[in-house]
Amino acid sequence: MSRENLMPELHPLDIATSLILTGDDTYRGQTTKTYANVIGPYGGITAACLMQAVLIDRRLAGTPVSLTVNLLAAVADGEFDITVKLARSGKYIQHWSVELVQNGRICSNASVITALREAGFDHQSVDAPAIGPHTDFDRSTGVFPLPWLNAYDIRFVEGAPAFASALCTSKLSTRSVQYVSDNPPRPLDYLSLTAIADSFLLRIFNVRAKSTPMGSVSITTHFTGAPEDIAAQGIEPVLGVVDGIRFHGNFHDQNMQIWGRGGKLLATGSQLVWFKN
Amino acid sequence: MSRENLMPELHPLDIATSLILTGDDTYRGQTTKTYANVIGPYGGITAACLMQAVLIDRRLAGTPVSLTVNLLAAVADGEFDITVKLARSGKYIQHWSVELVQNGRICSNASVITALREAGFDHQSVDAPAIGPHTDFDRSTGVFPLPWLNAYDIRFVEGAPAFASALCTSKLSTRSVQYVSDNPPRPLDYLSLTAIADSFLLRIFNVRAKSTPMGSVSITTHFTGAPEDIAAQGIEPVLGVVDGIRFHGNFHDQNMQIWGRGGKLLATGSQLVWFKN
Repeated sequence: MSRENLMPELHPLDIATSLILTGDDTYRGQTTKTYANVIGPYGGITAACLMQAVLIDRRLAGTPVSLTVNLLAAVADGEFDITVKLARSGKYIQHWSVELVQNGRICSNASVITALREAGFDHQSVDAPAIGPHTDFDRSTGVFPLPWLNAYDIRFVEGAPAFASALCTSKLSTRSVQYVSDNPPRPLDYLSLTAIADSFLLRIFNVRAKSTPMGSVSITTHFTGAPEDIAAQGIEPVLGVVDGIRFHGNFHDQNMQIWGRGGKLLATGSQLVWFKN
Repeated sequence: MSRENLMPELHPLDIATSLILTGDDTYRGQTTKTYANVIGPYGGITAACLMQAVLIDRRLAGTPVSLTVNLLAAVADGEFDITVKLARSGKYIQHWSVELVQNGRICSNASVITALREAGFDHQSVDAPAIGPHTDFDRSTGVFPLPWLNAYDIRFVEGAPAFASALCTSKLSTRSVQYVSDNPPRPLDYLSLTAIADSFLLRIFNVRAKSTPMGSVSITTHFTGAPEDIAAQGIEPVLGVVDGIRFHGNFHDQNMQIWGRGGKLLATGSQLVWFKN
């Protein structure tokens, strides 16, 4: 029986990230069909599973400020184990090392940093993009046949991915601006924000005329949103801006910003993507 | 006797990152005065020491594509040990986990990703900033009394850090554009690029009227420059662009791009900075 059928009262994100304690700082999880990618689960849900292991840890003091997830090998559909190590617990900051293992193989590892934040110096150097409400834009459907895309309500404001013409010019933009929210709606928290931070399609789709094997190799997210910003967001979609600069030698960079209510930056980050030539 | 006196023929960067094998995949290093920060060594040189342990590893196949360094605790002046683990070695990509330990305490850990790159799809979506040569700008001296700043030739094009007025407006820019090279000159390689990627002053200096304890917590660098780009750079300064968006609750984000000869993007990344209110 699938996990979705066993826990009908839970949101698909909570089902996909539910972990069962199996030993000292060790948990068992299971992939779900909702967040399936071409092979195995979508990277954002793997990131959320790793984050979840920290969020439910008894030693946690504070909220996430940084996450780097490295994707070492594809996660196969089925069960997996997650181990958590608290590498350092300081006065304000905790450093966690988390691993996802399947059949004895490390599929993913992550460093998570959590911290106590206090109000004080407050500055935002740029405004969020000035764009109408999400209801001004249509929900994107069927862009790519990836199951996990249905777990999100994505509305492109600009840069909807489409395979580029074979005559792609050298300065073709790779920028997309899009509203994103969980589908069905779910109030934002650090868990869902972790997954949403990887919900942008790989930038190479915007500039190359063909599709080849590709995937995120490392994803870094910095959580600039404080707990009160996250709570204030509720089920309102966040506004994501994503871009990449250089595509060369089988890799490209990808940077993103996620803006919330009141134009506050909730998260920003950078990822590295591998693609076959 | 200081390391600098023991190895007079070497560049200060090579002295500071020289590691002695002390066991299976374990090395000993030592801090140097050249790269001293307020307390212990500057984060960029710690990053370079961690990278060095991978660069000299017998199992290495390829060149760096990604690095995330977490700074858990201050490194004290003196010796330290670095251990390297090859977590995964695939057909194209290797994942390394590296730790810097001092007196039994993990001071820093890193995930390094190296890869074989092949020429093929090539695209750059934006041009490097159009700016005159580095000789058009004066070398910055005495901005802040940090010893490691003398290990670089930094020439500000815009956004030279200076404590902001106490009347700092909410949208004050935190962007700086600067030429950077090793001082004395040294041909660019992945080792020096790793350090240079953290040579930008923390953005909060540009917007806050006072100085309090602060430091990088996590630094992620993606190396978009291929070996031929790095080799072509020689001793010519790279052009760095750095910015931050949100400063709130004791943390701020900081993003950077490093441009090389021919306007090619050599590296990009994001870091998270902690500051006391």
